[in-house]
Amino acid sequence: MFLHKQALQYTAKPEKPDAVYARKLQEVIGGQYGEITVAMQYSFQAWNAHIPGKYRDLLFGTAAEEFGHVEMLATMVAQLLEKAPLGITEKAIQNDPAVAAVIGGTDVQDAIVAGAGARPVDSNGNPWTAGYVTASGNLLADFTSNINAEMQGRIQVARLYHMTDDPGVRDLLSFLLARDTMHQNQWVAAAKELQAEGIESLPAPSNFPIKKEHRDASYQYINFSDGKAAAEGSWAKGDSPDGLGQFTYIDTPPEGVPMPPPTHPDARFFGTTELPNVMEKMAGTVQDKLHRE
Amino acid sequence: MFLHKQALQYTAKPEKPDAVYARKLQEVIGGQYGEITVAMQYSFQAWNAHIPGKYRDLLFGTAAEEFGHVEMLATMVAQLLEKAPLGITEKAIQNDPAVAAVIGGTDVQDAIVAGAGARPVDSNGNPWTAGYVTASGNLLADFTSNINAEMQGRIQVARLYHMTDDPGVRDLLSFLLARDTMHQNQWVAAAKELQAEGIESLPAPSNFPIKKEHRDASYQYINFSDGKAAAEGSWAKGDSPDGLGQFTYIDTPPEGVPMPPPTHPDARFFGTTELPNVMEKMAGTVQDKLHRE
Amino acid sequence: MFLHKQALQYTAKPEKPDAVYARKLQEVIGGQYGEITVAMQYSFQAWNAHIPGKYRDLLFGTAAEEFGHVEMLATMVAQLLEKAPLGITEKAIQNDPAVAAVIGGTDVQDAIVAGAGARPVDSNGNPWTAGYVTASGNLLADFTSNINAEMQGRIQVARLYHMTDDPGVRDLLSFLLARDTMHQNQWVAAAKELQAEGIESLPAPSNFPIKKEHRDASYQYINFSDGKAAAEGSWAKGDSPDGLGQFTYIDTPPEGVPMPPPTHPDARFFGTTELPNVMEKMAGTVQDKLHRE
Amino acid sequence: MFLHKQALQYTAKPEKPDAVYARKLQEVIGGQYGEITVAMQYSFQAWNAHIPGKYRDLLFGTAAEEFGHVEMLATMVAQLLEKAPLGITEKAIQNDPAVAAVIGGTDVQDAIVAGAGARPVDSNGNPWTAGYVTASGNLLADFTSNINAEMQGRIQVARLYHMTDDPGVRDLLSFLLARDTMHQNQWVAAAKELQAEGIESLPAPSNFPIKKEHRDASYQYINFSDGKAAAEGSWAKGDSPDGLGQFTYIDTPPEGVPMPPPTHPDARFFGTTELPNVMEKMAGTVQDKLHRE
Amino acid sequence: MFLHKQALQYTAKPEKPDAVYARKLQEVIGGQYGEITVAMQYSFQAWNAHIPGKYRDLLFGTAAEEFGHVEMLATMVAQLLEKAPLGITEKAIQNDPAVAAVIGGTDVQDAIVAGAGARPVDSNGNPWTAGYVTASGNLLADFTSNINAEMQGRIQVARLYHMTDDPGVRDLLSFLLARDTMHQNQWVAAAKELQAEGIESLPAPSNFPIKKEHRDASYQYINFSDGKAAAEGSWAKGDSPDGLGQFTYIDTPPEGVPMPPPTHPDARFFGTTELPNVMEKMAGTVQDKLHRE
Amino acid sequence: MFLHKQALQYTAKPEKPDAVYARKLQEVIGGQYGEITVAMQYSFQAWNAHIPGKYRDLLFGTAAEEFGHVEMLATMVAQLLEKAPLGITEKAIQNDPAVAAVIGGTDVQDAIVAGAGARPVDSNGNPWTAGYVTASGNLLADFTSNINAEMQGRIQVARLYHMTDDPGVRDLLSFLLARDTMHQNQWVAAAKELQAEGIESLPAPSNFPIKKEHRDASYQYINFSDGKAAAEGSWAKGDSPDGLGQFTYIDTPPEGVPMPPPTHPDARFFGTTELPNVMEKMAGTVQDKLHRE
Repeated sequence: MFLHKQALQYTAKPEKPDAVYARKLQEVIGGQYGEITVAMQYSFQAWNAHIPGKYRDLLFGTAAEEFGHVEMLATMVAQLLEKAPLGITEKAIQNDPAVAAVIGGTDVQDAIVAGAGARPVDSNGNPWTAGYVTASGNLLADFTSNINAEMQGRIQVARLYHMTDDPGVRDLLSFLLARDTMHQNQWVAAAKELQAEGIESLPAPSNFPIKKEHRDASYQYINFSDGKAAAEGSWAKGDSPDGLGQFTYIDTPPEGVPMPPPTHPDARFFGTTELPNVMEKMAGTVQDKLHRE
Repeated sequence: MFLHKQALQYTAKPEKPDAVYARKLQEVIGGQYGEITVAMQYSFQAWNAHIPGKYRDLLFGTAAEEFGHVEMLATMVAQLLEKAPLGITEKAIQNDPAVAAVIGGTDVQDAIVAGAGARPVDSNGNPWTAGYVTASGNLLADFTSNINAEMQGRIQVARLYHMTDDPGVRDLLSFLLARDTMHQNQWVAAAKELQAEGIESLPAPSNFPIKKEHRDASYQYINFSDGKAAAEGSWAKGDSPDGLGQFTYIDTPPEGVPMPPPTHPDARFFGTTELPNVMEKMAGTVQDKLHRE
Repeated sequence: MFLHKQALQYTAKPEKPDAVYARKLQEVIGGQYGEITVAMQYSFQAWNAHIPGKYRDLLFGTAAEEFGHVEMLATMVAQLLEKAPLGITEKAIQNDPAVAAVIGGTDVQDAIVAGAGARPVDSNGNPWTAGYVTASGNLLADFTSNINAEMQGRIQVARLYHMTDDPGVRDLLSFLLARDTMHQNQWVAAAKELQAEGIESLPAPSNFPIKKEHRDASYQYINFSDGKAAAEGSWAKGDSPDGLGQFTYIDTPPEGVPMPPPTHPDARFFGTTELPNVMEKMAGTVQDKLHRE
Repeated sequence: MFLHKQALQYTAKPEKPDAVYARKLQEVIGGQYGEITVAMQYSFQAWNAHIPGKYRDLLFGTAAEEFGHVEMLATMVAQLLEKAPLGITEKAIQNDPAVAAVIGGTDVQDAIVAGAGARPVDSNGNPWTAGYVTASGNLLADFTSNINAEMQGRIQVARLYHMTDDPGVRDLLSFLLARDTMHQNQWVAAAKELQAEGIESLPAPSNFPIKKEHRDASYQYINFSDGKAAAEGSWAKGDSPDGLGQFTYIDTPPEGVPMPPPTHPDARFFGTTELPNVMEKMAGTVQDKLHRE
Repeated sequence: MFLHKQALQYTAKPEKPDAVYARKLQEVIGGQYGEITVAMQYSFQAWNAHIPGKYRDLLFGTAAEEFGHVEMLATMVAQLLEKAPLGITEKAIQNDPAVAAVIGGTDVQDAIVAGAGARPVDSNGNPWTAGYVTASGNLLADFTSNINAEMQGRIQVARLYHMTDDPGVRDLLSFLLARDTMHQNQWVAAAKELQAEGIESLPAPSNFPIKKEHRDASYQYINFSDGKAAAEGSWAKGDSPDGLGQFTYIDTPPEGVPMPPPTHPDARFFGTTELPNVMEKMAGTVQDKLHRE
Repeated sequence: MFLHKQALQYTAKPEKPDAVYARKLQEVIGGQYGEITVAMQYSFQAWNAHIPGKYRDLLFGTAAEEFGHVEMLATMVAQLLEKAPLGITEKAIQNDPAVAAVIGGTDVQDAIVAGAGARPVDSNGNPWTAGYVTASGNLLADFTSNINAEMQGRIQVARLYHMTDDPGVRDLLSFLLARDTMHQNQWVAAAKELQAEGIESLPAPSNFPIKKEHRDASYQYINFSDGKAAAEGSWAKGDSPDGLGQFTYIDTPPEGVPMPPPTHPDARFFGTTELPNVMEKMAGTVQDKLHRE
């Protein structure tokens, strides 16, 4: 159950309008690594969790915070758009290249569709899609996905920080950066704890009977490019991080095996085969073609 | 530059046809964590890399292997479909519930669109989309994304392993599981090496001036759900993994700040405001409405 | 700000597993008119609202309930999948057509991707997309969108009610039907209240200067099909609902105006024009083509 | 059957080129509430209709008009693009910020993909998708969807009206505004007529046995946010619009019921559980892991 | 302008219900090469055409027919669904594997969303998207796209023909096959006529100054795979079809040129570089990190 | 199997940065007819091919080249972005309309998401989707699709050529134009060869028993628009290109057949029917409604 409170976790107030920046900020609302993604991802991970207790509480506790981040950013976007030029005709300024330039950089749907409002889309206007969400039921994999999401999100916020001078916007971003720092750290800690407790380990999933995999190939770096430097990395020799093998480096991919012969499905799929197929052979000439059954 | 070789890295030959399983296997071709995703992701990460040498070579060397995995799986799918019932009418068997059941579980586009061929889609027929790809230019974040991709991919292959008894299919999957084990290990090793070399560290991006973030909030677990167990985790107290702070646990979210007042954009966006807006007030009665300017 | 509570608004417990039904239920989680849509739609309408007070509170108060509905349904789906056959091989039953039939009707990604978990997708596995959301800033239009969403949603739940005999599932659906009844009624009431208070009226947006529209065409039913029965409807004569006009019925569309001549953009867009364009005319023969500038 | 006539319903001729505006106009061609949406929506509602006569004729008669609106707008877009700067290099003007600003605001695919032509996309270049269409077979719900579509559409046209000074463009928009006024009115009239005739009533679907819904919850406004003003609305007390109940206001959501315990699906889905699962427990140490079956 | 006539071009009446087949038939309504695609494609090609006369008339004349094909197929789908089992509970038959098998093969949204109606989606339930449409303004290219669309469409209809025994369905398909035959032929004829009239020729676009292309590479088959058989084709030697060159065969791709060095964008994009960047170097130790600017 | 070589097929080096142009160039990376499309399309055609030998080798040999084209273009995009203004704040230039204009025309995700890197998207930021790919198993149809793809691709490159003055960019484009010329020619040659060898012929699929199609309609041009000029084309009279018929011209579409009556599915789909349905009739008055079963 979710309860809403008409307050923001942190101040979200720009000093001045900036519709171009509002568009950019939509990336961290409705982009691949925006706040909608993490809010939905943590929620579905919690709903699909198979254990009660600290890990599921961690998911629920963070998910709800992220919905509140969507709210802070949407509120910020609406204010950035509030008094900004958005294309409504003003003869005086319409011919001003500076104004035209600004409007050219805005998201025109913010004006046409939302009437100077926020939308659940990214900075190019692509609608948010649940195709971004990861919730496999395996917590080691999912927490790794979460570490990545918080890293990508923090990188984007850091870039956005340097794309504005507005102190109000920067103040909110400095708060979001801090929360991303926390969330990166917490998912790293949780992933370690899962392993320390022996619940999951590398390679994920750790409870698949490892003998069933083709162990000869489990620690070989096979170099399918012609660069030579990959041989210098820690992935080319020494112990593997899962503690179960030794890396080796193979500079030239093995020969491989012959491709199987091409398939020949039922003739009624009308694929192209070597010889005209049976029906066709029976058909004979063009005139026959018209009369064949 | 890519060169193609008419051989497969490993044998891909089913013992018998199975169109339902062919559909399932498409998940690891064209799904969110299928082989197309990793092939494209590692390629774009290499093209966006800012450093030559071992890390970029690792990306290139693995990317090309993954394109070959798409090929092995597509070849397998085509063979699984080759002699399977796919809905082409055969009076004798069409009334057999067992056959109908099988056909009901297939991807009908494999038959109608591809003529018993493989397609770049997932197991529900959703076309692969580049929205799955991550390539930020920050290698610590991107390698973490790669670890996750290999984990999710290996989990899916492990599940698929238990969804068939076909020894030919299982043989290929046992090879893919091994390569996923290698790739998980290699990205973990590479992420560690980046940090050991002092190139990147937590929190990513590590070269954003950390003083600019709101440090008070950087290590607080704030519990937005009412479960109590998250307090027991390693994310609730002690050193944070980035080595820069101490976790604290806050059981009840702070009060927050008041929401800013609602926005009032230009009246010509025709949003609903408290009072009929200026134009409306001038308009008076319904009859006036017809004559107003 | 959103707070989460580890409780459900209403019991969500199936009597027995049913993976096929789980798939169907995903329609009202992640479909066009599923609970994610209304939760996100009411949230963005609230964030884009231009007036504080009862209408915005109504939006916030309902939005949070809808996130809780997503949770109840996701929980239900996970339980329906928990003990159901999902394709994991069991030699004994794998050859049973009844079992095959069931598995054929499931969402295979529920098994392969989510490990028997819920996902933010519809009953065909299409990921939820923010393209479903409406939040224009005009409350009369948006509340009408909400009435429609609650109607479509309740129709789908009513259909789903008749697709199961499970008393636990039906119990939850009977609760959701009731809430949809409430929400239909509340948005109808709110839309009426907006009009009674003189804030908005038909046609929306009501504060666009109506004289600027081509009033001759504002109340004509123009019959672009050849059925005659539309002339019998209340939209063909009498007062229009907006109180500003009289409907008329036009059985045959007017002649219209000639299409403008085709466009001739810059030749360097290489569109096909009547005569080979200037460059081409200068080029002369085929040999010239090779040497032209 | 559809017949095409080489004429436009109304004049569509701009006074001067304007590629930025052409992009904006694409919203009402290929956007969520553009003309393609209503043309397709009314068509599918007609094809799915279960009754002949006035309602179906109304759907057919309006659908065909909307296809003609797509045509008028596409024609207008092509003309707006015809002589506009679209990025083709002209050294003289390329360095002019005013020109660059204009080009920056255009849809670059209008030039690169369509050669200065119209496309079935919205103003951000998102391709039109059938995910926008509603056709449930229930006419009260579908007509409500139509009212909303015409409201959203008219709001967008009204906004677009104020984004241009071109008298030719405004002339076409004034015609479209009028038709949207008609269509809003007609769907309102049709929805009322359905109810007056006793065919459908609130709550939709009206023929679901209402006793089967959890009637205790059918008229309660439950306040999941902490605003107090929703208590003042007509949805908080008094008769409900469906005539079947009395609204009540519940300021604090009831406690709810405990969440069901987390699910424990088959171990071969490799989800994370409390204790290492059976396979894992049998496996013992790391070395065992390598040899386990 | 489009006018609708309440008649079908050809009889569309199945002998008996078949919901599984209804789903399959949706491929040719709303799939990549379904009737919506060609109807919209020919319409946009006509609206973007730069010449009046026979070619544009051909586009308009065929576009309108295709909208009528959508109608015939939607009508057929609705009838195939009308009396078919769609999951509504009937205790007697629900336990019958044959019935379960049938229902498992249906599109569940046909029931849940459309109430036994047709939808603008493909046979996997993917909504039709305008991303399928081609309309470049160059008629030789676009007519080639049309030939392909009619070929793919006819192949799919031919496959569907063999997936049913219903004489009513087959009768409609036999008509559609004939129209696809016509449309293939007409676009081939039109493409030839464009070339015979000297309006367009190979390579398209034919009026790009061909000297500006790197002519050395214009007729080389470069073999990027290791198969040898491509050397036997007509593309490996002899005159090229455009009449402007001679094919040659290059068995091994040339060495190529070195890749340019990796890019080094502004440090504030936080990409990973060889050496910790300037900010980082200034930062010094971990403690410094906390105090740096 | 694919092998990667760290070299480019041709030089890809711009003379100067140009972020706006980088965005445009993305069209031919990740657009409908970009290099990803052809690389994936030729690969899947090869994997679905039913014959070994020259046609399949041609597909493999070209597919791998196209992956290399993606690489050249991605490399070019990264360099175009490397030193370009991308929105990072520089007080001095931020107020310069010329700079603002430039930034307004860039793809903001190139900066925010990719850190000045290339992405698998089109020039409007739409992610590449496998919905663009065609691989039917019928080589005549698929080669025709390939001709079209190379035509559309070459048209787009030709337009892009005229949108820049950068000699480095133009040099690469001149190479790509040449390869598109080759590829157009090769697919035309291959399609002819298939027919010359008697493997496939018009109409595709040529081995569907043509007598089963409704031959009366196979060569009729039926004019569903009111233009008269289509009668002048070669598709209106004379031999059809398939050599099997004679074109005829029908100026007015035949009357057609009556539409079948509307469908009446199970009442529990809650569609709207003429009379309130059985349940409803039993229900009686509003009060009854509350008590009905």
